[in-house]
Amino acid sequence: MEPELSATLVRDAVERIRPLARHTPVYLSRGLNREAGLEVHFKCENLQRGGAFKIRGASNFILSIANEDLPRGVVAYSSGNHAQAVAIAAEHLSARATIVMPADAPRSKIEPTRDHGAHIIMYDRRRESREAIADQVIKETGGTLVPPFDHPLIMAGQGTAALELLETVHHLDALVAPVGGGGLLAGCATIAKAIDPDIRLFGVEPERANDTYLSFQAGHAVEIASQETIADGLRALKPGKFTFPVLQRHVEGILLVSEDEIRATVKSLLMHMKLLVEPSGAVAAAAVMHHKLPSDLRSVGVILSGGNVDFEQLATY
Amino acid sequence: MEPELSATLVRDAVERIRPLARHTPVYLSRGLNREAGLEVHFKCENLQRGGAFKIRGASNFILSIANEDLPRGVVAYSSGNHAQAVAIAAEHLSARATIVMPADAPRSKIEPTRDHGAHIIMYDRRRESREAIADQVIKETGGTLVPPFDHPLIMAGQGTAALELLETVHHLDALVAPVGGGGLLAGCATIAKAIDPDIRLFGVEPERANDTYLSFQAGHAVEIASQETIADGLRALKPGKFTFPVLQRHVEGILLVSEDEIRATVKSLLMHMKLLVEPSGAVAAAAVMHHKLPSDLRSVGVILSGGNVDFEQLATY
Repeated sequence: MEPELSATLVRDAVERIRPLARHTPVYLSRGLNREAGLEVHFKCENLQRGGAFKIRGASNFILSIANEDLPRGVVAYSSGNHAQAVAIAAEHLSARATIVMPADAPRSKIEPTRDHGAHIIMYDRRRESREAIADQVIKETGGTLVPPFDHPLIMAGQGTAALELLETVHHLDALVAPVGGGGLLAGCATIAKAIDPDIRLFGVEPERANDTYLSFQAGHAVEIASQETIADGLRALKPGKFTFPVLQRHVEGILLVSEDEIRATVKSLLMHMKLLVEPSGAVAAAAVMHHKLPSDLRSVGVILSGGNVDFEQLATY
Repeated sequence: MEPELSATLVRDAVERIRPLARHTPVYLSRGLNREAGLEVHFKCENLQRGGAFKIRGASNFILSIANEDLPRGVVAYSSGNHAQAVAIAAEHLSARATIVMPADAPRSKIEPTRDHGAHIIMYDRRRESREAIADQVIKETGGTLVPPFDHPLIMAGQGTAALELLETVHHLDALVAPVGGGGLLAGCATIAKAIDPDIRLFGVEPERANDTYLSFQAGHAVEIASQETIADGLRALKPGKFTFPVLQRHVEGILLVSEDEIRATVKSLLMHMKLLVEPSGAVAAAAVMHHKLPSDLRSVGVILSGGNVDFEQLATY
């Protein structure tokens, strides 16, 4: 029986994940959208352990696994950041981790996962089902699947990012976060609305991976065909059964950004803030920089959700 | 009459520069030199206002100029980071700034200087004397020269970086900083030795701009011929008359790093720490990463002194 996502579940995660997740810094920028006079508070999850927010949810989930189940290990599928997070949390508990990763995942995401002692199974993103491969591993080992986003403990863990941000900044007109499967935004929205019912919430997707945007329009979860986007962490094909209702309840709108807007934002964050943010991690900032938000906002929290990108890819921007 | 550089002069600078200089974060890394088990504490001056430590010294100097002199403006020569710092401090006081910059300075250093309202005079680094051009401007305007490094108030301002670092970390076996003209290291060494007489101090230069290294060997200030190095902020041709005696008194050794070592370090800081550090700003980290320090150190403070680098240059690393 799953626990239910609530502000309390997010608050409970704070202590649990403390040995594994960093309290990341918040940087203020007035230059990202100077014309609008906007104060932008960046929550720097690119500086998080494992280079992304994913350690929050993965460690909250893995540290909740019953002691008798842990020796059979954990299993996950991920294009990268969740993989590394699961590997780090499993290593911390001396549990075996098996990770199913697409063969074309960035090297910057594969290598650190291996460095943390995980066993990696590569698959072809266009031909094979990662879920089927993971199921097979679980059948053989009896391991526990660590879902990438669609679980209350995962969402609650991710929500600690917003909790820390709001404890640092106190007031924000709005909070903006990237949407892949929706776990980060669902967790953040739940705690943010509990702290301040007036806060406005926005999710951001690449135009090319707009499943949540289309689902919002349709009023129910819609599945899209597999898409190519440089935001490799946001390629989920449909919102989760746990995440989507939470997003529907709390989130005002899903904003879309183009590949060029993402690239320009990665470059701008690097040149002006001196911060390396990966394409998936930069989409919320891209929405702010490219004026996709309502114009009456004065202070906005933006989650920079990750920083793992291959240098060779970056150099082509 | 110049004030004398002392720990008190550094402490006096703290309050004076507060309206202009950020208290920058310190990041701990155990991965930069894992074999040695070294704890490396990075003082992130790349996240400083203007993208470099230079605002500390420039604002300490400019905020000390007598009120009756300020209306005639300030003048500076700089390959970049000092230029931007002087422009920011002058803008803050509504004073006119004239900056003499090499025509081949990185765009990332020229444009922000102009954005802060400075008047820029370009010169040819190989054929013209920047000092002569600055002298001419001063003769015409009666402005005050803001020296790039060789002045007690500049050195004292830069020293606040080490003061903040030691207030954050409390104990360090050693402190390592880049050396151009030596202002940063002189200020940092003065305050660090006052706080902890046992702390060991090291400066780092590019092999290709080794004037301070050679001066240490000779026992007196030695001038080298103009050199090309990607560390464009460390091209000073000889140590200063104020800085050098301070370095001789406090600094154990000057370490040298190659162009390739600097490049590899910029890339490593970017990929692993998610921080953009310019070549000049990365030389101290390069010395740690490439094992140039004594092997008996356990905890080291490293000043990442700046983060202004053109994207196009970075992409070639």
